[in-house]
Amino acid sequence: MKVIVIGATGAVGKAVVEELGQRHEVITVGATSGQHQVDFADVAQVRGLFAKVGKVDAVVVTAGLLHFAPLASFTPEQFYVGLNSKLMGQVNVALVAQEYLNDGGSITLTSGIVAEEPIRNGASASMVNSAIEGFVRGAAIELSRGLRINVVSPTVLKESMDSYGPFFVGFEPVAASRAALSYARSVDGAQTGKVYKAW
Amino acid sequence: MKVIVIGATGAVGKAVVEELGQRHEVITVGATSGQHQVDFADVAQVRGLFAKVGKVDAVVVTAGLLHFAPLASFTPEQFYVGLNSKLMGQVNVALVAQEYLNDGGSITLTSGIVAEEPIRNGASASMVNSAIEGFVRGAAIELSRGLRINVVSPTVLKESMDSYGPFFVGFEPVAASRAALSYARSVDGAQTGKVYKAW
Repeated sequence: MKVIVIGATGAVGKAVVEELGQRHEVITVGATSGQHQVDFADVAQVRGLFAKVGKVDAVVVTAGLLHFAPLASFTPEQFYVGLNSKLMGQVNVALVAQEYLNDGGSITLTSGIVAEEPIRNGASASMVNSAIEGFVRGAAIELSRGLRINVVSPTVLKESMDSYGPFFVGFEPVAASRAALSYARSVDGAQTGKVYKAW
Repeated sequence: MKVIVIGATGAVGKAVVEELGQRHEVITVGATSGQHQVDFADVAQVRGLFAKVGKVDAVVVTAGLLHFAPLASFTPEQFYVGLNSKLMGQVNVALVAQEYLNDGGSITLTSGIVAEEPIRNGASASMVNSAIEGFVRGAAIELSRGLRINVVSPTVLKESMDSYGPFFVGFEPVAASRAALSYARSVDGAQTGKVYKAW
């Protein structure tokens, strides 16, 4: 299979590229690194990316910004950071990918454990991650040509504990290589509309 | 209790006003009708509303626009209709309400059955309704002074079957008066972070 990984140089993305690269041709995309660069919050740039890369069999997104802050001081603008990036960036990719995926191809997005298990400063993370899972439930029943869409919900990664550990006290971290297995299940499997919980 | 209902003249809102009005002082707010008018997608207007109304014991929102379209032709701009209105309108109200609710007061938002049960043309509805439920899960653990936040997820209303019926074939409609009971449970009850399913 030919697979695009958007967010390929992040903590999750690197592990996904390694996992999928064992069996598939992987094209790496990042905001500022990888074989191609794209700001996926801009649908025109997403269109440009696919126009260059052409037909693929699977699209994986492991990218997206979120703002973290106490609810009492959270502003609407801060909520839009996650809406514009992690949510609509991934939706943009899914919308454009419909036209570039070969029959039976798949889209795999990324949410996160905070969708279900809230943490302090995480109101936007709970909102955005839940939105991504809702989008996937909705989109799965409408895709044509046997196209599939799933989402992986990782918990905090072992590799990210230095920066995120204090926000996730008591959460059992997983190795990025283990989270990457969920992406492999989505890409190489046959399910659609599913939330794979990597925790 | 003194209760603000935003969206008070819609199908759900009217029934909520009738149900809560039996026990509470209700202030009605609409986009173009009710005692006060507000475009809740604009946080400045929400601030103006609360500055006029002053302290309250409960805030209920039963308002919000969503765009419905086939996934194959959905544009990012169309996804932003629901994000700016039904999602961020309600989030704006919740953010401002924190400052105007008396101790122990409550915020009750509205999602919808499509969060969990997708329908054709409903990718944005599944996304936005799931986002609202995620926001409520996240916000509930951070509110101070005993403030509570819940969300009601109505199915299609009997009163709306003329317009929405064709999209909800096989869904059992509920009377708006029955959906309104879930809002009463949230306002008069003691739970927080809960999704009340009116279906």
